[in-house]
Amino acid sequence: MTRVAILGTGLIGTSIALALRERGKSDVEIVGHDKYVDVARKAQQRGALHQVAHTAAEAVRGSDLVILAVPPLAIEKLMAEIASALGPDTVVTDTGSTKAEVLRWAASLLPYPEHFVGGHPMAGKTTFGPDAAEPGLFDGARYVIVPAVNSSERAVTTVVNLAETVGAKPMYMDAAEHDSYAAAISHMPMMAAVALFSMERASEAWPELSAMAAGGFRDMTRLSGTDPAMAFDIAVTNRQNISHWLERFASTLLDLRDRINDVDNEGDLYKLLAATEFEHTGFRNGIVGREEKVGADLSEVGAFSFSDFLAGGWVSEKLREVTKDSESRLKALEEHDRNRRNV
Amino acid sequence: MTRVAILGTGLIGTSIALALRERGKSDVEIVGHDKYVDVARKAQQRGALHQVAHTAAEAVRGSDLVILAVPPLAIEKLMAEIASALGPDTVVTDTGSTKAEVLRWAASLLPYPEHFVGGHPMAGKTTFGPDAAEPGLFDGARYVIVPAVNSSERAVTTVVNLAETVGAKPMYMDAAEHDSYAAAISHMPMMAAVALFSMERASEAWPELSAMAAGGFRDMTRLSGTDPAMAFDIAVTNRQNISHWLERFASTLLDLRDRINDVDNEGDLYKLLAATEFEHTGFRNGIVGREEKVGADLSEVGAFSFSDFLAGGWVSEKLREVTKDSESRLKALEEHDRNRRNV
Repeated sequence: MTRVAILGTGLIGTSIALALRERGKSDVEIVGHDKYVDVARKAQQRGALHQVAHTAAEAVRGSDLVILAVPPLAIEKLMAEIASALGPDTVVTDTGSTKAEVLRWAASLLPYPEHFVGGHPMAGKTTFGPDAAEPGLFDGARYVIVPAVNSSERAVTTVVNLAETVGAKPMYMDAAEHDSYAAAISHMPMMAAVALFSMERASEAWPELSAMAAGGFRDMTRLSGTDPAMAFDIAVTNRQNISHWLERFASTLLDLRDRINDVDNEGDLYKLLAATEFEHTGFRNGIVGREEKVGADLSEVGAFSFSDFLAGGWVSEKLREVTKDSESRLKALEEHDRNRRNV
Repeated sequence: MTRVAILGTGLIGTSIALALRERGKSDVEIVGHDKYVDVARKAQQRGALHQVAHTAAEAVRGSDLVILAVPPLAIEKLMAEIASALGPDTVVTDTGSTKAEVLRWAASLLPYPEHFVGGHPMAGKTTFGPDAAEPGLFDGARYVIVPAVNSSERAVTTVVNLAETVGAKPMYMDAAEHDSYAAAISHMPMMAAVALFSMERASEAWPELSAMAAGGFRDMTRLSGTDPAMAFDIAVTNRQNISHWLERFASTLLDLRDRINDVDNEGDLYKLLAATEFEHTGFRNGIVGREEKVGADLSEVGAFSFSDFLAGGWVSEKLREVTKDSESRLKALEEHDRNRRNV
């Protein structure tokens, strides 16, 4: 009999529990705890848990694996809370979105830090709580595994097994790498969605803007619906990396503005748009990572490079057109501006 | 018998045609033309068109309504091409994403500019072409109607009827208003998606980043899959407005960075995140526009203000926690930095 304790039975914790019950060994017993007892009860009603424990320590006692599935800042508190209840063989992992701080806390708070391995399943939703949980949430997603320098092999193996059992693909990284990459691909985009939505919402024209908003704006701002407690914890535990990427994004926006206004080189703007659409098509069709680049089925996007793409059909035609028309458009615009000034 | 000519049988033109055939009067004949004859044939095979015309002028001749469903820059060319074939009663409209230039072209190129009324259905997809078309594409979407100062009442009524027949809600605006609002809610977000995707794609760490990317990043960058010809035309016909909003967005990102780094006022960051999530929930549940604000069913989001929201349950608890913990976290971080410097 293996006993697994899940602390925090929100979207991630409950989804892990559901996946373990559906796909794991039959002799696993899952004990859950949440600081809101009705949240834990709901997870139990969904069939995720065998038992609900009244305290985190009670859930941990006698468990082989402890999963801390709470927002980053709550991880520190939970570690302090369970420290005295942990046995010498219990493996501990977390699912937090940032890792450097978590590993620092584990080293200083846990009695057997060698049995701690950080984890971050790269899946989520903006809906949260046990009701939003699904056993297939992690299917095909990466599960970043972040061992400490002194992590035991057994602890690493246990967490890798957990990742694979829930349907994810394990991927090793150190904490600094993880936090920098996660800032780029997840935390900064979330903050950018918050910035975009709050900026538009604050506009005088919001009644008109919101009425005109179509699927594109909805998609771009969906992440601003992230649980604010989670977003806050991510922000304060990964400040430097998020700041770095927010700055890079801001300056990329200004570069694009310059390119849009560079009326003498409209062909360059078109090439950028076409190259981005081309690369995005590859990404959308699963050309990601390193290994996949070699083995991916390229049939859908065509096994050719962007320069082949530029040389062929529609794109080169549009490019010729852009270059040819650019001069006359420039002239017309100048004339229009002149006329306007004369009025 | 009413004859409608659709010039450009891509996603929008074909979707309009399908909606007109499914929902319009039975005595409507739809003639289509596309500069790529196979694109028009595909639209016909999908049941969107009664006839395919070989030239734009041929499609227009004898038509009661002409719909120019091509990217902005192509509208100018089409107007010049069809001018001599237009009868004195034919109403002309377009579906272009920008309107000031289009109205300027109509005034100078069309023989009866009083029968032109600009239009912009606020719906779309990043997949394009007649295969992606659907009769329900415009259901519930706004359809911006942009009359010129001298537009005839009959022309306006005709285009409003068109909008309603395809399932959309008409919304009047002048061209300058439209272009400024469309830049804010549609064009700039599209360009921001291009900037975000191309920036991440250009990173050395793209193999890792792309593997780690989850649904959030996919949503945020979906618009970078927009047809580059369309994106280009939008950029060059709405340069000033897009530039303005790109700058505002860039500075909003830097403001947010400052807020994330303001370690003495973490409560403010939390309030911003919570307020944004709250407002976004309202938006997601259909609280948009002016009229809807009054009439909307608030049951799902709760009919209370954000300050009520802050005062209640989870949010205020987290806020208390944030404020309480902030100081100790600050101390811990300083200590950590000091230790690091001493190493």
